Amino acid sequence: MASQPSDQHAHPKSDIDIAQAATMPPIMEVAKDKLGIEATDLEPYGHYKAKLSLDYIEALNGRPDGKLILVTAITPTPAGEGKTTTTVGLGDALNRVGKKAMMCLREPSLGPCFGMKGGAAGGGYAQVVPMEDINLHFTGDFHAIGAANNLLAALIDNHVYWRQNDETGLDNRRITWRRAVDMNDRSLRQITTSLGGVANGAPREAGFDITVASEVMAILCLAKDLKDLERRLGNVIIGLTRDRKPVLAKEINAQGAMTALLKDAMKPNLVQTLEGNPAFVHGGPFANIAHGCNTLIATKTALKLADYVVTEAGFGADLGAEKFFDIKCRKGGLKPDAAVLVATIRALKMHGGVAKDDLTTENLDALEKGCVNLERHVRNLKRFGVKVVVGINRFSADTPAEMDLVRKKCASLGVTAVESDHWAQGGAGAEELARKVVEAAESGDSNFKPLYGDDTSLWNKVQTIATELYGASEIIADKKVRGQIRDLEADYGHFPVCIAKTQYSFSTDPDYKGAPTGHVVPIREVRLSAGAEFLVVVCGDIMTMPGLPRVPSANAIHVDGKGRVAGLF
Amino acid sequence: MASQPSDQHAHPKSDIDIAQAATMPPIMEVAKDKLGIEATDLEPYGHYKAKLSLDYIEALNGRPDGKLILVTAITPTPAGEGKTTTTVGLGDALNRVGKKAMMCLREPSLGPCFGMKGGAAGGGYAQVVPMEDINLHFTGDFHAIGAANNLLAALIDNHVYWRQNDETGLDNRRITWRRAVDMNDRSLRQITTSLGGVANGAPREAGFDITVASEVMAILCLAKDLKDLERRLGNVIIGLTRDRKPVLAKEINAQGAMTALLKDAMKPNLVQTLEGNPAFVHGGPFANIAHGCNTLIATKTALKLADYVVTEAGFGADLGAEKFFDIKCRKGGLKPDAAVLVATIRALKMHGGVAKDDLTTENLDALEKGCVNLERHVRNLKRFGVKVVVGINRFSADTPAEMDLVRKKCASLGVTAVESDHWAQGGAGAEELARKVVEAAESGDSNFKPLYGDDTSLWNKVQTIATELYGASEIIADKKVRGQIRDLEADYGHFPVCIAKTQYSFSTDPDYKGAPTGHVVPIREVRLSAGAEFLVVVCGDIMTMPGLPRVPSANAIHVDGKGRVAGLF
Repeated sequence: MASQPSDQHAHPKSDIDIAQAATMPPIMEVAKDKLGIEATDLEPYGHYKAKLSLDYIEALNGRPDGKLILVTAITPTPAGEGKTTTTVGLGDALNRVGKKAMMCLREPSLGPCFGMKGGAAGGGYAQVVPMEDINLHFTGDFHAIGAANNLLAALIDNHVYWRQNDETGLDNRRITWRRAVDMNDRSLRQITTSLGGVANGAPREAGFDITVASEVMAILCLAKDLKDLERRLGNVIIGLTRDRKPVLAKEINAQGAMTALLKDAMKPNLVQTLEGNPAFVHGGPFANIAHGCNTLIATKTALKLADYVVTEAGFGADLGAEKFFDIKCRKGGLKPDAAVLVATIRALKMHGGVAKDDLTTENLDALEKGCVNLERHVRNLKRFGVKVVVGINRFSADTPAEMDLVRKKCASLGVTAVESDHWAQGGAGAEELARKVVEAAESGDSNFKPLYGDDTSLWNKVQTIATELYGASEIIADKKVRGQIRDLEADYGHFPVCIAKTQYSFSTDPDYKGAPTGHVVPIREVRLSAGAEFLVVVCGDIMTMPGLPRVPSANAIHVDGKGRVAGLF
Repeated sequence: MASQPSDQHAHPKSDIDIAQAATMPPIMEVAKDKLGIEATDLEPYGHYKAKLSLDYIEALNGRPDGKLILVTAITPTPAGEGKTTTTVGLGDALNRVGKKAMMCLREPSLGPCFGMKGGAAGGGYAQVVPMEDINLHFTGDFHAIGAANNLLAALIDNHVYWRQNDETGLDNRRITWRRAVDMNDRSLRQITTSLGGVANGAPREAGFDITVASEVMAILCLAKDLKDLERRLGNVIIGLTRDRKPVLAKEINAQGAMTALLKDAMKPNLVQTLEGNPAFVHGGPFANIAHGCNTLIATKTALKLADYVVTEAGFGADLGAEKFFDIKCRKGGLKPDAAVLVATIRALKMHGGVAKDDLTTENLDALEKGCVNLERHVRNLKRFGVKVVVGINRFSADTPAEMDLVRKKCASLGVTAVESDHWAQGGAGAEELARKVVEAAESGDSNFKPLYGDDTSLWNKVQTIATELYGASEIIADKKVRGQIRDLEADYGHFPVCIAKTQYSFSTDPDYKGAPTGHVVPIREVRLSAGAEFLVVVCGDIMTMPGLPRVPSANAIHVDGKGRVAGLF
């Protein structure tokens, strides 16, 4: 179960039960009936998943774009918000209120499936299906990304093994490219490779990240087409020379074979919701060291195919929406028409200081206090020039007085707050939300602009985000990091920045709930993603390889007597 | 290019050019027209690949079996033999002479694609297509196997991390399960994991094998159904306790989630030959530390669907055919009806001492001398009670006198030798071979029996193979290994043995060509594959993780302007 704790709901059924009980029309029918796409333009993966051909996508070029709606959320708490379910529920509801709508979601990672998080394809009656396929392997995109990542790693070590680095100058001690695997495996975070003698190379320190943290993932998600993909892969920095000049993947001629491995992964994956509406589920970069949203190619294609495209961004709006706007929209030429800020009464109460066990009791004081978090996010979203609708994802313990308070708070900010109950009711539970979103999107009031200009210095980009969105008083960095940022300015100063910090607070301290101000944002380190074309600014402990919990979900996952996956939540 | 050096042929076109120039009917049509399978029983992967549903396979149970033909080869030399092309050519030819025939082949590994070997889907006009898809990712089976392998690895280290090995007794220093990646990456052969402090676990020595060397691969290829797969995965030995008792995967409850990852990989992949005949390409275990042939489920299913099933085994007949017979046929209840022993005049001359550069000159003395290798293989194959046909894969420099000599040699052994030219002519070039194979298979003379009984001791199983097939005088092992074999006898004495030795000689010395006798086979080590249910007997340096060459094929592989893979040979 991805984003909504099921104990708040009366459903006797788990997400996988609901998903497996659904009768799906074949995806070719959905494509034809809802989008007018012929079977020949799709590559089926089983009967319920398909990839859209790149030729077809190219041929869409002349068509006008639909409206783009971003679903984002308040600062996450253990109470849960329900961003993915809202995205799916809103998409279904838009179809119900007469709009031709599509959803664009991220692909789930295998790792967390076997760890703690479980599946990530929505929940309750707001899911994309086939749920178990989407969560396990899906159409193989992540495996392809892992293979491309690891081909580059093998080519790098092979380059050194044959002493071809006499030519490129790559310093074996300064190789920065890491390997990737789509698994939660803490043992691989830091390793020593090439042990066992000369035939295995020269020992060096290395490590694995989970596939979603690979720069190849970020690149795939931002590439316009196969040519742009190959160009970006060629620009990946694999390490440094002795005098610390970057060595690129194209210097060892890796980008062609990597692109060959990724040619199918570039094609958007079409699936459907439980209500039979079309959704692209494509790409899934980390939302800390990368930009955290589905592929640009899926979003751009959906805009050609539908009147409304609902998409989500990772974590809270401070990270997810900011990167969606400042990285994806800026670079992809997207103009979002509205943003839905998802919140729950429960989560707002947690921001107001209530403990997780006390969330079922009405507490207007705490709620009022916690609303500062929502207010900050609303103000931030408005900075980007987009209309905001607040979506309150309903839980059974919410009281009318609590909802009323949130509604009034939002009204005072000039935005509408709408309750929705898609988790329990599917699209029918989000129709009012859909109507308000249509109103916002069709008001013509949105006038999207990124937060900072390309020509702002890298340092000032970070400062702008930290002071204007996070409420920080300043950003700091030690001399070494400041020097690095200054050195990068000449060649990469036009890149957007991608801030990696905790998702649990506007500040860099995860315990600092609500809407902190006056705090200091320390930049610990910067990492240049020269292929993805952004500068990662690390402001906290960032884990790029999760571990498994004491009792991993894997313990319960199995295939039942009918050959179906069971125990996946 | 897999198995035939193209410089011996006049084709101006590379394998991928030939493959991409072919107009393929959709695989659903092939399935319907050639096998009577409806689209609903298949899961398409694009328009030219499909997986057959396990329900459909189960429903075939009552049908009679077709004839099973094994394609194997003389001891490989750098001159090439052409086992895969013969398998494809013979299958196409059987269809031409009026038999309903299918082929069963192994899936290629990604690793060698980017290394030296290139693609492995046949060659010339005897190929399975779509060639580039089959070589890159295909239907994702190998990625699924790698993920299942690495999930187990992550669960093992997690088990130790949380100190749950206080219960199982697993000794962190005696973990034997390795990780897997489908890449040639020598740097990962021997590594140290869990560095970097307590949060990453306790450092230990570990390593990666290429995915085809994973025991999960061998298990998938021998499992009868999903239930048998889960049972076998549960029996995998992950390491030992302090007092050296095996700890099994089921003790950490890994088998269910591993099976969930493999549920689609268990379904045979249907593709077609250039002539539009159906072929299963499914599974691909190493032929040294595993048994080297495609999945049992594909072979058994093909026997229900076709009158003739042509399949191949890895390396020469001493390894590939022996394991096909003694492991796969014994355990799967298969009764092969004939074996085709593939040879080339060129390779036989190399066995007679001719250097690679001199192979284009007629040399009857060397050929006569080299024929001892072919003779030994023919005699060996007959030991299993199957009729043998010798297939001489034609090269342009072969002379009539040379062919005549081979034909006479074979006649003196009581077998027919047939020239074929499927590489250049497709099935039309192998029609005579097909007719002779039909004659052999329908003679009723085959009466398959494994070389040794289940109840022969493990030591004697190895001795029987070494003395009766390899021509060795004896097998030897040091005290420790003898002790291990003796200890395994009680619980695993009924397992077949799987000998891992060089493929380049009947002996354990790769330079010893022809048909050596009187040599000694030293057993260096034994490894119990308790899930695959055989004992690996290591008699030489066995590499389970290849490296990349100085100039890897990856350098040339790319996507062309039309979005097609180019540079893959």
